[in-house]
Amino acid sequence: MCEANVYLIDEKGEEELFLESVDKIFPEEENLVLENIFGERKIVKAKIKGMELVDHRIVLEK
Amino acid sequence: MCEANVYLIDEKGEEELFLESVDKIFPEEENLVLENIFGERKIVKAKIKGMELVDHRIVLEK
Repeated sequence: MCEANVYLIDEKGEEELFLESVDKIFPEEENLVLENIFGERKIVKAKIKGMELVDHRIVLEK
Repeated sequence: MCEANVYLIDEKGEEELFLESVDKIFPEEENLVLENIFGERKIVKAKIKGMELVDHRIVLEK
């Protein structure tokens, strides 16, 4: 499966796992909506800082 | 491998393949920089409309 783990950069500048095994990401107004393969859904006001799909990594920042 | 094909919505509103087998995407000023597993790199002034990683699909729009 080709989902990715999504990390969010916290206030200390460190990456924290925000949602694992994410399949879908789409913007909705100022937010990003994330859905993973287990049907979990998270909404966060952030933007994509970078993606490395082969490494299954997506990093968001506020 | 878990790369994705990136489509760009053209002026007719249709999705056109922009770059295949993309590994990395990151923003750079107003642009998105895309790099694929073959070392090809493309820069486009667009934003991410949606991603479906399990289906290896990322859609951009200008």
